[in-house]
Amino acid sequence: MADYTLYYWPIPFRGQFVRSVLAHVHAEWDEKTFEEIQAMRCASPDEQPVPHVGPPVLIDRAADVSIAQTEAILTYLGRKHELIPGDLVLEAFTHKVIADANDVLYEMTRYNGAQMWSDATWADYQPRLTRWMQIFEDTGRRFGLTPESGSLLGTAEIGIADLTAHILWGTMTTCFPTLRAVLDDNAPALAGLSDRIGALPDQAELQRKSNGNEWCSGQIEASLREVLS
Amino acid sequence: MADYTLYYWPIPFRGQFVRSVLAHVHAEWDEKTFEEIQAMRCASPDEQPVPHVGPPVLIDRAADVSIAQTEAILTYLGRKHELIPGDLVLEAFTHKVIADANDVLYEMTRYNGAQMWSDATWADYQPRLTRWMQIFEDTGRRFGLTPESGSLLGTAEIGIADLTAHILWGTMTTCFPTLRAVLDDNAPALAGLSDRIGALPDQAELQRKSNGNEWCSGQIEASLREVLS
Repeated sequence: MADYTLYYWPIPFRGQFVRSVLAHVHAEWDEKTFEEIQAMRCASPDEQPVPHVGPPVLIDRAADVSIAQTEAILTYLGRKHELIPGDLVLEAFTHKVIADANDVLYEMTRYNGAQMWSDATWADYQPRLTRWMQIFEDTGRRFGLTPESGSLLGTAEIGIADLTAHILWGTMTTCFPTLRAVLDDNAPALAGLSDRIGALPDQAELQRKSNGNEWCSGQIEASLREVLS
Repeated sequence: MADYTLYYWPIPFRGQFVRSVLAHVHAEWDEKTFEEIQAMRCASPDEQPVPHVGPPVLIDRAADVSIAQTEAILTYLGRKHELIPGDLVLEAFTHKVIADANDVLYEMTRYNGAQMWSDATWADYQPRLTRWMQIFEDTGRRFGLTPESGSLLGTAEIGIADLTAHILWGTMTTCFPTLRAVLDDNAPALAGLSDRIGALPDQAELQRKSNGNEWCSGQIEASLREVLS
């Protein structure tokens, strides 16, 4: 029996943050099919293992616990596997990094595809996207991060904040390679951190198993690819 | 000297979640002016006390710590003042409740006003809004919440999850009274919890000090009021 069961579409996007932690702690997990995810998502709240609007949902099978919302799943895994610092400020900053990543996902997909990108709206967005990169960069720099060494929050071991930063920026720039130069220009220490984490065997294997270069999928991914081409 | 300084616009919306906790722990705080918030928001990340895109930002003055992102601020205050359960699952559920609330704020404002409501889009949204109410209701029911008694996660004392649920649904339905009947129909135990918390002297005083019935302000609030009228 797998340690965990993940309900998430077969794309990176939000699910990859969870997969990254599971891979990092060498957990075994299985994933449900599109039909199973859809059936659970559409069930009434009182019939769901945990009341939710959308995936990801993670089930810890030995503990018989189901958690929804990426932030809550990362909290659960992070505390269980000691990947969130006990220090009050560093713990809060871990949640800041998760919340920042969540905002970037919403903005890059224009709120889960509520609107599509045009050349004009994408151009308007660029200062804000680079500002997000600088915010991660500056956070890391304050804790001693350099392009060659360090972690996002200055911890000796990599934790949820580092994995989150890697999955956000590393996965995004792998799926959309033209954004890599923007990341290098605006956030060289962040790019270096992401590369170091991406080179760890578990993370490299996770990336290899991804379905090609898909990121968020759907019309909004097509729209992103069009403005980036 | 105040214990905390809050940077947030003079409206409830995201800032009220922070104010609610500060009031609950009897902290003294001051708030910055619109011009001061705007100046800090527009500074470059390396000149900000904490790198961020937008408020709220909370400064713990004795500790000389600045935190951005509502989720991170609630984590900081919740851990510092022991308002987040130590139990692994209840802690994760606290973060689920915060993330759910954040999603509802984004949806109700069509992602911070990126689009305006029309009668048609508002009508389309109603099943999803009531589903969010049911999700909070069902979460509470699983932990023993009834219209008359209990807390959202079954804790003996009210915590961050309860205050968050109250500020989300109680403040929203106070600012938009026509939504109160929808809440009562879909989530009577949640409505009862919110009323009990709202009747606590500190929370009642916070509500009295709010600027009239304003919620998120701006064109999106005007749009909400129009579809609700």
